[in-house]
Amino acid sequence: MHIGLVGLGKMGGNMRTRMRNAGLTVVGYDRDPELSDVGSLAEMVEQLPSPKVVWVMVPHGDPTHSTITELKELLSEGDVVVDGGNSRWTDDEIHAAQLAEKNIGYVDCGVSGGVWGLENGYALMAGGDAADVAKVQPAFDALRPDAENGFVHAGRVGAGHFSKMVHNGIEYAMMQAYAEGYELLEAVDMVDNVTEVLNSWRVGTVVRSWLLDLLVKALEDDPHLSQIRGYAEDSGEGRWTVEAAIANAVPAPTIAASLFARFVSRQDESAAMQAVAAMRQQFGGHAVRAAEESPDVPPA
Amino acid sequence: MHIGLVGLGKMGGNMRTRMRNAGLTVVGYDRDPELSDVGSLAEMVEQLPSPKVVWVMVPHGDPTHSTITELKELLSEGDVVVDGGNSRWTDDEIHAAQLAEKNIGYVDCGVSGGVWGLENGYALMAGGDAADVAKVQPAFDALRPDAENGFVHAGRVGAGHFSKMVHNGIEYAMMQAYAEGYELLEAVDMVDNVTEVLNSWRVGTVVRSWLLDLLVKALEDDPHLSQIRGYAEDSGEGRWTVEAAIANAVPAPTIAASLFARFVSRQDESAAMQAVAAMRQQFGGHAVRAAEESPDVPPA
Amino acid sequence: MHIGLVGLGKMGGNMRTRMRNAGLTVVGYDRDPELSDVGSLAEMVEQLPSPKVVWVMVPHGDPTHSTITELKELLSEGDVVVDGGNSRWTDDEIHAAQLAEKNIGYVDCGVSGGVWGLENGYALMAGGDAADVAKVQPAFDALRPDAENGFVHAGRVGAGHFSKMVHNGIEYAMMQAYAEGYELLEAVDMVDNVTEVLNSWRVGTVVRSWLLDLLVKALEDDPHLSQIRGYAEDSGEGRWTVEAAIANAVPAPTIAASLFARFVSRQDESAAMQAVAAMRQQFGGHAVRAAEESPDVPPA
Amino acid sequence: MHIGLVGLGKMGGNMRTRMRNAGLTVVGYDRDPELSDVGSLAEMVEQLPSPKVVWVMVPHGDPTHSTITELKELLSEGDVVVDGGNSRWTDDEIHAAQLAEKNIGYVDCGVSGGVWGLENGYALMAGGDAADVAKVQPAFDALRPDAENGFVHAGRVGAGHFSKMVHNGIEYAMMQAYAEGYELLEAVDMVDNVTEVLNSWRVGTVVRSWLLDLLVKALEDDPHLSQIRGYAEDSGEGRWTVEAAIANAVPAPTIAASLFARFVSRQDESAAMQAVAAMRQQFGGHAVRAAEESPDVPPA
Repeated sequence: MHIGLVGLGKMGGNMRTRMRNAGLTVVGYDRDPELSDVGSLAEMVEQLPSPKVVWVMVPHGDPTHSTITELKELLSEGDVVVDGGNSRWTDDEIHAAQLAEKNIGYVDCGVSGGVWGLENGYALMAGGDAADVAKVQPAFDALRPDAENGFVHAGRVGAGHFSKMVHNGIEYAMMQAYAEGYELLEAVDMVDNVTEVLNSWRVGTVVRSWLLDLLVKALEDDPHLSQIRGYAEDSGEGRWTVEAAIANAVPAPTIAASLFARFVSRQDESAAMQAVAAMRQQFGGHAVRAAEESPDVPPA
Repeated sequence: MHIGLVGLGKMGGNMRTRMRNAGLTVVGYDRDPELSDVGSLAEMVEQLPSPKVVWVMVPHGDPTHSTITELKELLSEGDVVVDGGNSRWTDDEIHAAQLAEKNIGYVDCGVSGGVWGLENGYALMAGGDAADVAKVQPAFDALRPDAENGFVHAGRVGAGHFSKMVHNGIEYAMMQAYAEGYELLEAVDMVDNVTEVLNSWRVGTVVRSWLLDLLVKALEDDPHLSQIRGYAEDSGEGRWTVEAAIANAVPAPTIAASLFARFVSRQDESAAMQAVAAMRQQFGGHAVRAAEESPDVPPA
Repeated sequence: MHIGLVGLGKMGGNMRTRMRNAGLTVVGYDRDPELSDVGSLAEMVEQLPSPKVVWVMVPHGDPTHSTITELKELLSEGDVVVDGGNSRWTDDEIHAAQLAEKNIGYVDCGVSGGVWGLENGYALMAGGDAADVAKVQPAFDALRPDAENGFVHAGRVGAGHFSKMVHNGIEYAMMQAYAEGYELLEAVDMVDNVTEVLNSWRVGTVVRSWLLDLLVKALEDDPHLSQIRGYAEDSGEGRWTVEAAIANAVPAPTIAASLFARFVSRQDESAAMQAVAAMRQQFGGHAVRAAEESPDVPPA
Repeated sequence: MHIGLVGLGKMGGNMRTRMRNAGLTVVGYDRDPELSDVGSLAEMVEQLPSPKVVWVMVPHGDPTHSTITELKELLSEGDVVVDGGNSRWTDDEIHAAQLAEKNIGYVDCGVSGGVWGLENGYALMAGGDAADVAKVQPAFDALRPDAENGFVHAGRVGAGHFSKMVHNGIEYAMMQAYAEGYELLEAVDMVDNVTEVLNSWRVGTVVRSWLLDLLVKALEDDPHLSQIRGYAEDSGEGRWTVEAAIANAVPAPTIAASLFARFVSRQDESAAMQAVAAMRQQFGGHAVRAAEESPDVPPA
């Protein structure tokens, strides 16, 4: 199979390697000429036999929009564009409709695997018409861990990114779960070696997981994580998961809590807690930080 | 009525004044001779006619335990001790049993009102036998806002502090609710004057309350609360409310969330969020703060 | 002042009455001829002097969209449309832009007060240009509780509905706070009379509020709320508040928790808890409801 | 090694088998003569060589208290009791002190593994003095999955149960995380086959784990879990984790949320949501279930 691949950053570059290792002919394009196999998107498209399959691996939002708009001009009926980036599932319907005007197929594909994917393979969740998915199948087969695992045709256009989004929402809450447990173990003086406790959970327990393996690995390098700030970005997918939950009246307390914890982690000051402190000051009559210092005053 | 009052700090001192204003004879004792009417607890007890009523208004835990232990020695059958501090309801059963050995009555009383109580009166939630409560009633009537409001005999021993504890748990969540709304209004540039918006809610809306009045007052003094750190202590009662909820299998998501927000507000660094950052680094392969900087890498 | 009013349901009808009581000339239009003062929207507009002010009080979404589209045809430069319904603030920008094509002004107005507004007045949060707001001011003054309270010009177009939305988000969390406290008081046998406890909080406490007054009123009618199902709808505004919080990276744990509690209240079965039960069954090896019945088996 | 084992239910029985398979001589006692190797606890103790090691595997609380009290009578200086049940870590200090009066050692051991432990081995978290732990080591080695994994001497007495408790708290939140994601995938019509989506996550993704494997297994048997009620018990350990978090001022929002979700799952009616419905009725003026049916009424 020949495939075009747009976006050769850390993720796209690894995917190119893995597909080539599996025997696919990959023509990669990146704005950075150091990374790119060709000089332009048009050149990349020209080198592909029909039906042409182009995998887009650029940031979601405007970069993906403009790439797909360009590809619409360059591709023809029967070709297929795969969006393997982190687009919101609602963008997929827009992109699919846009390409459908020229009878170009569209497949959205959520990709999990991070920097470990090159070696271990990627988990792939695809959405789109079966005929379009079939045209991309050799690439999916090259990228997935093995012939049995790591690929699902989840449903119609959007279902791939939706599934990956939910995956990430779950990931947020799982990480937060381990993080809360870690903090509690660190907080008590009864437990001598938190790293060893977490390590003992890696085999034979209910909470064993790859995330736990990673946390133990981090702790083995830096036992109290003193080199790491408690600051966590969030990608769009955690937010979208909560939005989708709300739109579907699905309670999502742990996913929302883990998202909010990340928001808090990035604040230098919390306006909300300033307001709480201000209210306590008003009804307690105390200096703001001195609120609990007068031992005989019940705090209302 | 004559009453003994132990603990003349900000709260106890104001209560002495309010009871005296209502015509009660109050003999106050405090370790601080500047505040105390008498030289010792024994002297205070001596000055009271039988049946003697002693209101204890000292910090919960050891100070209350030791005061009640001393009073047990000084008082006799038919006398009544009132614990008006912030004791845990489980302490009340212990104190009542201790005093019952000498047939001394015991009433627990949750007191709300803070620094405004002197002027506006206190809300009082009492627990104990009806006969014991009756002996204290003139004091309750002096302290409550008026004859119709602000007093309840909530149930048996412990019911007063339990009710007050739940009051405080609700208070935590209400404050957090306003605080979240305030932060959201501050976060958007669409709303010009957050203080005026909150002020407009004070009459005619569903969220009008005394806490809202206080928040507006604080904002009128300091429109963006820049003089106040977002740091909030918690008294025992918020914690106990969540513990009691757990013990009774009662879901308490907003009260627990408001308690946790206070915990976070006091942390210089969050071990949990360090763990989250560490896990993200492990699977994303990025520098910790640089996790989102490589735009073409889907964060797994 | 003359004003047109579209939508004469329970809310709009009361507002018409209150404005008329204040001396305004109100021409009301409703699809229901029993309620309507005129036979058509066009007739309503004809009866207004220029600059014409039309207050729209219909459900948000399509009914508001179509009403504003019709009014755009009927009105002229210098006229003003007020959307007093519950539109999402993002709709306001669309409506304002639509009307601006004919130089018709637009003001969004969040209205709080419910069935009590007729008597007590409404709290009004307006967004829009000062000149447009000024044209509507006599109506605002008629509707608000008094000349001092219950009105704010919150900012540009959208700021009114945004402020009202945040108000409702806070309202959700406040109601949930009281509800959790109520459930906890009901759950223990120590507290004899929960209604009286809540009633005792109405004066002199930190948690006193109109919502508390309402809860006590409901409990006085039906002490254990046995006539009421624990089923709570949510309007759009609670959801939008959490969405806006997420969009602005504002932690909103209590508001989100109160929204999720409503979602749960409407579920006959929880797919999430089925999944939890299924996982417990898998690792515990027990029948699903029998999971805790074997006392010597640690649940993993 | 000889070891006594008290409690031969599903868990204890499997542990006896695994220890015997590893070459240990196990004398098991159970109240049920069908299960027991001996006729009495005393007989069991008699058969052990000194220093005697007795592993207790009975329900926490009274059964464990009384077993340890009996063993104190039967054992002598230098012997060791292991509590392998689910005791609260605070009980361990009591049990250790009780046995220390006779210089009997005490080790607490949290055990994870459930019904899979017989085959795969158990994860063991021990607390106690190194000398006491050393006496039990052959049993730990027999029970753990292999010589490298599944055992930690976590710290002093209590540290084993504390670590296992935190493990279970994390487990609650992880299960809830998957459960929320599952419900969201089920709620949308875009995703055709939720089971296949979850199955695709089992290899190569960030959320892969044993719990995910179990959930997929359950879904393969019963694709929409229609045979399972969304009803989940909670053991003490989830509650204790939140209590310990509160006691140490550690925010635990996801663990608490997952605990509360279980509480809700067991309620036929929610008093809290009855209160919310009642408040909405009061200020909205609507019938309780009809609250949203009057489309022109903004819900305050």
